[in-house]
Amino acid sequence: MARAARLVEQALDVLLPSVDTAEGRVAEAMRYATLGGGKRLRAFLVMQAASLFSVAETCAARVAASVEMLHAYSLVHDDLPSMDNDDLRRGKPSTHRAFDEATAILAGDALQTRAFEILAEPDTHSDPQARCELVAALGAAAGARGMVGGQMIDMLSEGKTLDGPAVTRLQALKTGRLIQYSVEAGAILGRASAQDRHSLAAYGRDIGAAFQITDDLLDVEGSAEDLGKTAGKDLAAGKATMVAVLGVEMARAHADMLAAQAAKHLDGFGDRAACLRALAAYVVARRN
Amino acid sequence: MARAARLVEQALDVLLPSVDTAEGRVAEAMRYATLGGGKRLRAFLVMQAASLFSVAETCAARVAASVEMLHAYSLVHDDLPSMDNDDLRRGKPSTHRAFDEATAILAGDALQTRAFEILAEPDTHSDPQARCELVAALGAAAGARGMVGGQMIDMLSEGKTLDGPAVTRLQALKTGRLIQYSVEAGAILGRASAQDRHSLAAYGRDIGAAFQITDDLLDVEGSAEDLGKTAGKDLAAGKATMVAVLGVEMARAHADMLAAQAAKHLDGFGDRAACLRALAAYVVARRN
Repeated sequence: MARAARLVEQALDVLLPSVDTAEGRVAEAMRYATLGGGKRLRAFLVMQAASLFSVAETCAARVAASVEMLHAYSLVHDDLPSMDNDDLRRGKPSTHRAFDEATAILAGDALQTRAFEILAEPDTHSDPQARCELVAALGAAAGARGMVGGQMIDMLSEGKTLDGPAVTRLQALKTGRLIQYSVEAGAILGRASAQDRHSLAAYGRDIGAAFQITDDLLDVEGSAEDLGKTAGKDLAAGKATMVAVLGVEMARAHADMLAAQAAKHLDGFGDRAACLRALAAYVVARRN
Repeated sequence: MARAARLVEQALDVLLPSVDTAEGRVAEAMRYATLGGGKRLRAFLVMQAASLFSVAETCAARVAASVEMLHAYSLVHDDLPSMDNDDLRRGKPSTHRAFDEATAILAGDALQTRAFEILAEPDTHSDPQARCELVAALGAAAGARGMVGGQMIDMLSEGKTLDGPAVTRLQALKTGRLIQYSVEAGAILGRASAQDRHSLAAYGRDIGAAFQITDDLLDVEGSAEDLGKTAGKDLAAGKATMVAVLGVEMARAHADMLAAQAAKHLDGFGDRAACLRALAAYVVARRN
């Protein structure tokens, strides 16, 4: 994971705009929001899934950088005062605190733009069909029926009680779709068979759900120091989480079940998928 | 132009998400911000340029809908309280006034996502290479080195005095790049020769500049009733415009010169480009 993080950090530095022009402030904020932080889980998933099909690492690193930009944009906008109003992110002031609100909105906007642009560029894959599939898959994962739709439900559900299926759908949209996309992107880069792509998508769906439940457990049990973001916030805001629906014990058991199920989807890949299998265990055991 | 507007309105209605789910509020705001208003200048440019190469109207209408979504997203975000803080747009309350700030941010985000996703989908063009070129060209026009960069400079320049070249660059980024993209998108759809694409790009660059100067003249001389948005705002905010640099008379003469120059770039297309030629005249003669 450290190696993937290093590779994606280098790719991000090359692919993000430089700060030496009149509009350099927005590039500074894009770099601030994206570089030097985060677990790079999504990048790792792209690179590991791509490696199953012997995809060139430089191509995979571009797609990994793209999804980390998309993820960073969503964090910048989610932290805004009119959204979750969070001052702390990855152990630093959130982007609108370090810069200002207008710059943070623009930096998020331009990070999303760049994420799509990178996927369409020839260096990402020699086959334009693969590049189009990446753009369309990221669009489906990120838009009104994906990540943004999930954030909308999340905001509308504050203070309301959602049942289990409604929370599951909310989480699948808000974080699950982008995590699943990350795994599928590796399969798209590798021109995988329909069956292999299906297996990886199922793995991605399950670890996405396990990841989010663990996030909600950490929000209840973790400290801001461990997390690099404000703890206890979701609980205080009355957010709909699986922890609220199931309680801590049952939620943890459910996450563990999902992680085991995720690993099972990789049986067909044998030893080549050892890292992805280990990641499923890490996702539910992590402390931040 | 009315015909292009009707076609793009139909395409937008089909391509925008429906409002019948838990996250339907963001789809409602996307529809509110995009449907039933605007001159559809960018849509018209896509469709007219595409018609020079006999591109199927259904394909051109998809690309036209995509660029109108991208444009609508930029208006929604620009109108936000932390940006230009504008309550009126296209004769209606701006999106954050009709809904709320969080919903407006999310609707803008999802409009951008959908704009890129549509371009990558097979129905847009049979050749994936053309679809990739559209995505990459839109990315370059919309991002930190394009529209968003222009908006950043615009905000940073409030109350400052920019010289002519700096204002020209600001306007080229903020509105020119997306207008130029719209014309080039028609050429990409039509798999135009490098020379034809170059001529159309030059036309797009010049009418983009003429359009923006006319906008700034209308901000000084027009009424909110004509414009469907607040008049006199740029002047009051001390925004950098060519009207501020050149004065009203000289700015109008400059816009007329650019419109004539734009039309000249179309000589090679003969009578087929009559509509685009007429548009260059309209862009500087319009009252809203």
